[in-house]
Amino acid sequence: MTANILVVDDLETNIKVLEAKLLKEYYIVYTANSGLKALEMLKTHKIDVILLDCMMPELDGFETCKRIKANPDTAHIPVVIVTALYDVEYRVKGLEAGADEFLTKPLNDVALFARLKSLSRIKSILDELQLRNATNTELGIKTKTLYQDFANSKILIINDDAVQSKHMMGMLSRLTSNIKIISDESMVANLINEEFIPDATIISCQIEKTDPLRLLASIKTNQYIKNSSIMMLAEEENMHIVIKALDLGASDYFIVPIDTNELIARIKTQLRRKYYQESLRTDLEVGMNLSIKDGLSNLYNRRYFDAHLPHLIDKATESSQYLYALMIDIDNFKTINDIYGHQIGDEVIKYTAKILSTNFRVTDLVARYGGEEFIVILYDINDKNILNIAERIRESIATSIIQKDLHITASIGITKHLPTDTKESFILRADQGLYQAKNSGRNMVRFI
Amino acid sequence: MTANILVVDDLETNIKVLEAKLLKEYYIVYTANSGLKALEMLKTHKIDVILLDCMMPELDGFETCKRIKANPDTAHIPVVIVTALYDVEYRVKGLEAGADEFLTKPLNDVALFARLKSLSRIKSILDELQLRNATNTELGIKTKTLYQDFANSKILIINDDAVQSKHMMGMLSRLTSNIKIISDESMVANLINEEFIPDATIISCQIEKTDPLRLLASIKTNQYIKNSSIMMLAEEENMHIVIKALDLGASDYFIVPIDTNELIARIKTQLRRKYYQESLRTDLEVGMNLSIKDGLSNLYNRRYFDAHLPHLIDKATESSQYLYALMIDIDNFKTINDIYGHQIGDEVIKYTAKILSTNFRVTDLVARYGGEEFIVILYDINDKNILNIAERIRESIATSIIQKDLHITASIGITKHLPTDTKESFILRADQGLYQAKNSGRNMVRFI
Repeated sequence: MTANILVVDDLETNIKVLEAKLLKEYYIVYTANSGLKALEMLKTHKIDVILLDCMMPELDGFETCKRIKANPDTAHIPVVIVTALYDVEYRVKGLEAGADEFLTKPLNDVALFARLKSLSRIKSILDELQLRNATNTELGIKTKTLYQDFANSKILIINDDAVQSKHMMGMLSRLTSNIKIISDESMVANLINEEFIPDATIISCQIEKTDPLRLLASIKTNQYIKNSSIMMLAEEENMHIVIKALDLGASDYFIVPIDTNELIARIKTQLRRKYYQESLRTDLEVGMNLSIKDGLSNLYNRRYFDAHLPHLIDKATESSQYLYALMIDIDNFKTINDIYGHQIGDEVIKYTAKILSTNFRVTDLVARYGGEEFIVILYDINDKNILNIAERIRESIATSIIQKDLHITASIGITKHLPTDTKESFILRADQGLYQAKNSGRNMVRFI
Repeated sequence: MTANILVVDDLETNIKVLEAKLLKEYYIVYTANSGLKALEMLKTHKIDVILLDCMMPELDGFETCKRIKANPDTAHIPVVIVTALYDVEYRVKGLEAGADEFLTKPLNDVALFARLKSLSRIKSILDELQLRNATNTELGIKTKTLYQDFANSKILIINDDAVQSKHMMGMLSRLTSNIKIISDESMVANLINEEFIPDATIISCQIEKTDPLRLLASIKTNQYIKNSSIMMLAEEENMHIVIKALDLGASDYFIVPIDTNELIARIKTQLRRKYYQESLRTDLEVGMNLSIKDGLSNLYNRRYFDAHLPHLIDKATESSQYLYALMIDIDNFKTINDIYGHQIGDEVIKYTAKILSTNFRVTDLVARYGGEEFIVILYDINDKNILNIAERIRESIATSIIQKDLHITASIGITKHLPTDTKESFILRADQGLYQAKNSGRNMVRFI
């Protein structure tokens, strides 16, 4: 996949060299000669990866990176800090500033392109999850900040060198105590059984019993643990394995000997990205879920009810079972609202919804039909039982106490689905049952 | 990226050969020795790409492919039909059966792996869009069928060989008349201005003025047209360009001379996949949108209102502007519901919502607050204007005719936000204003 790359450097020559390399690989290149200009460009251009020089006047690479990562609109864009300084202290500083990668000049082309490939792949998935509309912003989703607490993170080390594993576990204990070490692939299934689903996995390239790349592939395609972020532990001479690993879906690598601070900083980067991606996914799921539920009562909403009722009618007809509708309406709700105010009115709705959701089976469809009106569709039941259930519901509501001196009652209409019924005539009859119950003095059940 | 590949062939040797090749590239391989077994496996395994032999006893490759594509649970899994038959008639038959690709034995490894890479990339994006929850199924989203009508599809041909372009346009006219031909990249901007956003783009590898791969890269990173499906038109000796193009994001290619039926079949495959992906994205957006809107009135719902009100208070406070709340309640709604039934009650809600949404500015927050109660938050306005607006709304409602003999009125309470107000006290006061309007005889506006 190609991608939009922003190259930020104060030296024109550096920009030219990098630009030429990237163009040759068919990347689309944007350039900025200062940190401030880069921040400006990010406002108007859709950038997939940023290559950021470290040493620049005014705003240096670290500071620029911090600002990119602090802005919710740009925080998810991968940043690679590029520098002539090899010192591990700088690498850690860059990663702590939120950089996704830290590369030293002169750049190794193969490593650079392997990185860009893996980072643009991640970016394209984040883009899909963010959608293109404003709803996320409206719901406040875009303003999420990056995850900072890693005490509950789970880390898996796959390595048959027991000494090295212990050593790494020691280093990682600064971050979390949820670390497991396994020495071969067959133990992965056990972990899943124990519900140890790792957030990050470190695979040693020196592992002897299995091919580390095959191990990586099997994790990446395992539905339970495929979202674990994978890092390769390698010696300098294993770089060819690392390059292939990045291509297969690994997100980072360490070259031994490892500096503790760098290890921690890199793992934090991976974990942050993983949690960010997960939270985007959760937001979507929650959003989709909210769209079928009523916010106040947490019952299914009218829209869902209307869409789902035909399926229930079909199902009951196919299996030759009776289908019933119960229409439940809180008596004198308007007066309660006027006297006690809307907040208490809301409490009454919630309280009634709770009684309903605890008194029906999961296969029954319980929905908020209107303001103070609820509807329940049931099948696999008979006339006698349905009357008993309705009576029990009526009584539960009538004996409940919302607050001192505030008692409520509800009227209930019941009907059975007839072969000649349309969706509308079925519901209308339940409504008429309710109307009869109201007219007979409320706090009643009427079956018509 | 690695992927789960299902190899389907009735000959054990064929399976073994293909399996070995795939394992070497670190794919995870599943195998089935008949079409029926393949369908069985798809029920329990998460497969990313299917390699399907054409000639099998019982269920042949075409029939198996048709069944995979007819099942909403598996329709999105890319299928590659593999065969010893080169005949173009078979290729078209395979593509018409819904196959994503048709490869002839002996398989060219480079072409095979370029394909698998591009197909698994597409699959991973579809997976993200489908989420992992049951909501889609509940909303009936998963049962969508594949797109079949291409009359409105837009196709772009980028080629400087005018004769060849004309010829292709003629062949494609069987599918759609929305075809444009351009001869170089500079004309892409014009197309976007004319709002010709192509669903599919064919780029000639023989184009002289520009590098076809650079052209591809610039389309794939252009935010307006990046979702266009890209196909390369190549001569046999350009295969190296095609392989790189698949890597950069192209989805398919044609080798000249082109058979009309094959061209149409391949373009249909691409268009179907594009529309499928778009519809998944739209479902998510619609779902997210539904979660903040009330289904009946199409106004913002209570949940959104509660989440958004603090932002409006902050905004008004920062800019030192007045903030007002209007609480609007339909008079005697309960009686209307009882006399005319719920369907008419719903009409009343919709009608009132329409009056509200047409009488306020886009910056005003208009929400359904409860059953027959609406709330509007406005700023950048003064006491006199707010009273005029409320009066106008009251009058619009009072003079409206829902149906013969059914007139409605509404009462309105207004209040201004005070520096000492909490969110709750602000809304409570609007509620009290409404209560006063009701007590003074309804169909009134009260500002407190």
